[in-house]
Amino acid sequence: MAPLAIGIDVGGTQIRAALVAADGAVLDRLAVPTPATEGAAFVVARIAEAARSVAGDAPVIGIGLSAPGPLDAERGIALATPTIAGFVDFPLAAEVRAATGLPVALENDGIAAAIGEWRFGAGRGLANLVYVTVSTGIGGGVVVDDHVLRGRKGMAGHIGHMTVMRGGELCACGHHGCFEAHASGTAFLARARRLAAGRAGSALHAPGPALSGAAVFAAAAAGDALAEELVAEEAEMLGLGFASLLHLYSPDVLVMGGGMSAQFAALGPRIEAAVRRIAMPPFRDVPILPAALGDNSGLAGAGALAFERFGPGAG
Amino acid sequence: MAPLAIGIDVGGTQIRAALVAADGAVLDRLAVPTPATEGAAFVVARIAEAARSVAGDAPVIGIGLSAPGPLDAERGIALATPTIAGFVDFPLAAEVRAATGLPVALENDGIAAAIGEWRFGAGRGLANLVYVTVSTGIGGGVVVDDHVLRGRKGMAGHIGHMTVMRGGELCACGHHGCFEAHASGTAFLARARRLAAGRAGSALHAPGPALSGAAVFAAAAAGDALAEELVAEEAEMLGLGFASLLHLYSPDVLVMGGGMSAQFAALGPRIEAAVRRIAMPPFRDVPILPAALGDNSGLAGAGALAFERFGPGAG
Repeated sequence: MAPLAIGIDVGGTQIRAALVAADGAVLDRLAVPTPATEGAAFVVARIAEAARSVAGDAPVIGIGLSAPGPLDAERGIALATPTIAGFVDFPLAAEVRAATGLPVALENDGIAAAIGEWRFGAGRGLANLVYVTVSTGIGGGVVVDDHVLRGRKGMAGHIGHMTVMRGGELCACGHHGCFEAHASGTAFLARARRLAAGRAGSALHAPGPALSGAAVFAAAAAGDALAEELVAEEAEMLGLGFASLLHLYSPDVLVMGGGMSAQFAALGPRIEAAVRRIAMPPFRDVPILPAALGDNSGLAGAGALAFERFGPGAG
Repeated sequence: MAPLAIGIDVGGTQIRAALVAADGAVLDRLAVPTPATEGAAFVVARIAEAARSVAGDAPVIGIGLSAPGPLDAERGIALATPTIAGFVDFPLAAEVRAATGLPVALENDGIAAAIGEWRFGAGRGLANLVYVTVSTGIGGGVVVDDHVLRGRKGMAGHIGHMTVMRGGELCACGHHGCFEAHASGTAFLARARRLAAGRAGSALHAPGPALSGAAVFAAAAAGDALAEELVAEEAEMLGLGFASLLHLYSPDVLVMGGGMSAQFAALGPRIEAAVRRIAMPPFRDVPILPAALGDNSGLAGAGALAFERFGPGAG
């Protein structure tokens, strides 16, 4: 049997694990809750359990581990993960290696997903790709000239924390005006709830704090004026940030993943229109596409990383 | 005699040419005015003349040609240079090659200067560098993981056109809120003149439209309150943009060049303070340094590019 890799994505809510083939196929998957408040040792134990469970008796070459930044991917250390207790200067790769007996390559979750889309998804065969995950936060990963950007401590591509509006909304990082603070799913929902509270005529008014992002998109599709404004504003902010990313990295394609990309049918054309208006002419024809692998981008990318580091041809 | 390269920097005002050694030494230099309004053929003739003049009888392997973007560096084409008439979809590299009989490598001026600082200047020996030129506009070039970022059409690193303030100042590119529109030398001077007009008590009031950027820094050093405000604001905007660049590229060092870097003694500490406040903790210790090669960064970088493409060891 051809060797397989284990791809694991550690998030603040879930730990997801998969058996990944060399061609990116996700053969088996499972998800367990992250014991995010119980301490790092519990998280490591849960990761090892999930790895054993998906591996079964398959021949496994190693683990690609995708985790939220900021982390020092070179040294395998979680530096200060806000969503998981104990992930502060924590030697995550070494601990998972000790718990599983398998070699472990740690990667920022945005970069892992970028690798997945580049190798097997919307950017396959292209030399230049920017992947942006728009979810509770905004993260990403970048490939330029067929090279995955890592940079000092493997921290390149912290896309969510470029400032798009000086003095703008307060971000979770403590600074004002970050892309994440204006265009993430969290920002979208906060804006929707704030404006809905004052707009009694809108379909969004009644749900109050129970208003969901999906409900806003549904109301926009049904013609609710406030919902349409909110969707237009979200697309405008995404387009503004994406245009900056085109200027900064000059990709062949910009791929959008994360929870918000489920609404790509509504957002995509508006994002493209904003990019065409904002970007300089030579950058305007770059396609903006939804992630082709859906929520498997990160698992497939983590698997690819394990093959690259520990596979038959690895040096 | 060891072979030499010709480095040429074509700007809207001047064409500068130099004979460059393999170790980056700039052996001979000249500058002639750019016939910017006379048409592309005149510019090419002037470039060829300058190349012949610096080369003399030296053994020359080729020309590295640095020019303002946007240009398609891969294909050697100036796409739409606003400051030089006729540089629209113009095959600059091929024309200079025809006029000189030498092989020509075209590069964006920001990237050429980044290569110079990386190979021979403030970033020597480091794997990750962001170079930002702050002058009439803002441009730059980026090295990540020992690789010069080029991207699609060689257009990566258009740093001046990331949006830092949605709805902010109008930029030369037509969009509002670009980094260049808020932090370039042009933006600094425009702000100074605007504010000085209304501040009769300031030393900056009298010169009116004749007010220079250097005069603002001199007045700030002498304690003029308005001048101090202007310098502080410039440093804040630069720090804001630089912090974004740290998050996006994760460099080991950020190098500032261009005319504004002549004021680095006054700006540097304030820029560092802004970056320390704005950037996420793992990015705060990245040094912000002035260009070590001064206005030779681009010439040395263009020379290095010629050696890389056409030198003894080139493939």
